[in-house]
Amino acid sequence: MDKLTVIKVGGKIVEEEESLRDLLDRFALLPGHKVLVHGGGRSATRLATRLGIESRMVEGRRITDAEMLNVVTMVYGGLVNKQIVAGLQARGVNALGLTGADMNAIRSEKRPVKEVDYGFVGDVNQVNGDMLADLIAKGIVPVMAPLTHDGQGHLLNTNADTIAGETAKALARHFEVTLVFCFEKRGVLRDEHDDLSVIPTIDRNLFAQLTAEGIIQGGMIPKVENSLQAVEAGVRQVIITQANALGQPNEGTVVK
Amino acid sequence: MDKLTVIKVGGKIVEEEESLRDLLDRFALLPGHKVLVHGGGRSATRLATRLGIESRMVEGRRITDAEMLNVVTMVYGGLVNKQIVAGLQARGVNALGLTGADMNAIRSEKRPVKEVDYGFVGDVNQVNGDMLADLIAKGIVPVMAPLTHDGQGHLLNTNADTIAGETAKALARHFEVTLVFCFEKRGVLRDEHDDLSVIPTIDRNLFAQLTAEGIIQGGMIPKVENSLQAVEAGVRQVIITQANALGQPNEGTVVK
Repeated sequence: MDKLTVIKVGGKIVEEEESLRDLLDRFALLPGHKVLVHGGGRSATRLATRLGIESRMVEGRRITDAEMLNVVTMVYGGLVNKQIVAGLQARGVNALGLTGADMNAIRSEKRPVKEVDYGFVGDVNQVNGDMLADLIAKGIVPVMAPLTHDGQGHLLNTNADTIAGETAKALARHFEVTLVFCFEKRGVLRDEHDDLSVIPTIDRNLFAQLTAEGIIQGGMIPKVENSLQAVEAGVRQVIITQANALGQPNEGTVVK
Repeated sequence: MDKLTVIKVGGKIVEEEESLRDLLDRFALLPGHKVLVHGGGRSATRLATRLGIESRMVEGRRITDAEMLNVVTMVYGGLVNKQIVAGLQARGVNALGLTGADMNAIRSEKRPVKEVDYGFVGDVNQVNGDMLADLIAKGIVPVMAPLTHDGQGHLLNTNADTIAGETAKALARHFEVTLVFCFEKRGVLRDEHDDLSVIPTIDRNLFAQLTAEGIIQGGMIPKVENSLQAVEAGVRQVIITQANALGQPNEGTVVK
């Protein structure tokens, strides 16, 4: 099977001109098939503020009412996505911007209201892996915005980590997939105050041990758990690292 | 050759919920291959106003500075395009939203500054007809936003009529193309105050005669001229009509 790299980058990296340029340079140089999944939360919050719309978050997740859905559709599907696509085209990468609605790439359902009503937020049901694999095999590089659709005409705001994970899993039937989560730190750290304390490799056993010891905690727990689940669903490996380590070997934490 | 219909709809139709729903219903029912090209100017102006950005127009064309480019990228590439795509998916149409940057669909160059500096506005250089034809033959329905790119990383605001015309011409090598321009009137009128005075057919000779007589004037002159040029470049026919006549035979003005 051909190799494929699915890279998820957070909002901060794609929202600042210099870090975006550096990311696109690095991404363009990566060999083989690739997919870029991006966030854009900071820009969405900034636009919402300018429009007098309040951004409400619960445990890091955005409450998405009808007005906020329009904001994220504009920012994720329009501004951020198209700037990345144009930037990659300029670097010789044949990028195609996609939301989950485009070619029915990712179908989701509106999150049920329990303790929290997240509004127009989607939980992924199905990724159209065959269609994406067909595009990728033709040399197209999908650039995926964190928006999906419910098949009934509604766009839904969807977590970019989830999109990256589910896309990587769906493509594991077609490619040998490496999934890379880029975030602020160099990897999963033993000591959050020591940037050099990167844990080189994590598997399910070490994860259980490190969470029991309190070394992996907070927001890192779902990130590593999602990574392990991706590996268990057929993704070859997941790398948790910084965007500026893209393309450099032996950087970050490898989950497998 | 298979038949293909390229339909251009203005901003007003896609920006109001009811007329958008009606358009999508009609568009979904059209037989054969199809492409939708949309505007979105009113929404762009509205968003700009809310953001305190002044909309400046010269002869109906928007002056697009850096801030306005962001606005149109959000509105055309994000909000309007993705709502159409999701709405078509709900109607069983396998829509794919595209700007000119996506898959290098439409390359343009920044309009040179003469009497007017239009800013980040693109004049179309090349439509990637082979790529679009390949998608269309697979059952994909491109939904095209009025944005192109210069291949150097810049998005450019581009007239939707021009995108529709150039796309129709590029696809005329692959399909028997009908290009439909939807606007407010039922067709090209002999008497602008009489909605029933639709001129059924216009060719180059009649156009010369009607402009000389002052019957075709103002904004209709470039519309018909562009239509004639499309026909001369291989498009089978151009129909100028109202969106709510889509799918109805013998409506509007046929340019051929």
